[in-house]
Amino acid sequence: MATRTARTAWNGTLQEGAGQVELTSSGSGTFDVSFPRRTADKAEGTSPEELIAAAHSSCYSMALSGEIAGAGGTPIALEVTADVTLAPDPVGGLHISLIHLTVRGEVEGLDAAGFEAAAQAAKVGCPVSKALAATTITLDASLA
Amino acid sequence: MATRTARTAWNGTLQEGAGQVELTSSGSGTFDVSFPRRTADKAEGTSPEELIAAAHSSCYSMALSGEIAGAGGTPIALEVTADVTLAPDPVGGLHISLIHLTVRGEVEGLDAAGFEAAAQAAKVGCPVSKALAATTITLDASLA
Repeated sequence: MATRTARTAWNGTLQEGAGQVELTSSGSGTFDVSFPRRTADKAEGTSPEELIAAAHSSCYSMALSGEIAGAGGTPIALEVTADVTLAPDPVGGLHISLIHLTVRGEVEGLDAAGFEAAAQAAKVGCPVSKALAATTITLDASLA
Repeated sequence: MATRTARTAWNGTLQEGAGQVELTSSGSGTFDVSFPRRTADKAEGTSPEELIAAAHSSCYSMALSGEIAGAGGTPIALEVTADVTLAPDPVGGLHISLIHLTVRGEVEGLDAAGFEAAAQAAKVGCPVSKALAATTITLDASLA
């Protein structure tokens, strides 16, 4: 059991204010966030969606390495990209409408079907996938 | 509508391997992750849980600034801390067992009850809270 902490200091209104989000437990960094930047075409500073993408891709890659070994394979190299989309919510406000995972794996001892099965199992079992179960998560996984 | 991307490059097994997670859309940084570090007493490198905490605290602070204005107040300064706990899942594997938000607000034009109501509304309406609805989210909010 482990607890990790992050903190945001926010000043001002939603449209005109801005904040700094700090990775507190690790001290890895502090990053600017703002609402206009969050939905701008070009990302400057991080955003809740980019941070969700980072959490999901890192958790998923760990879960997949475990699933590959559990299926009798050896994980060599995995590349996991998460694309997180923020959109108007049909019931009001905004929501995360889609998380798309793109996975390429270099694996010994599993064929394409075995890798696909491991990738699907990691999508269901990874702790961040479970926490994000209220969203739509799609997966495109193949051997490199 | 906006999409933000992060990517993890992972090498090796769950227990002995390691990865680097990149905040791809913004280029804000690349951080080491590993499974032993994820559950260690001391956080070194970031972790999926710390990144979820960062996503939630930053999203919540924006949502709260909007709720305060919607209730007729003026948000001056908000400090939002998110503590995210990873624990064994009763149904197997690991899960995020708790997200605790601690909120302190400097606000003009709202009393304690008005601030508490805005804080509760932000807990329900923030896009990251909605995405994390499968977890337990607790809130301790008060005026600074």
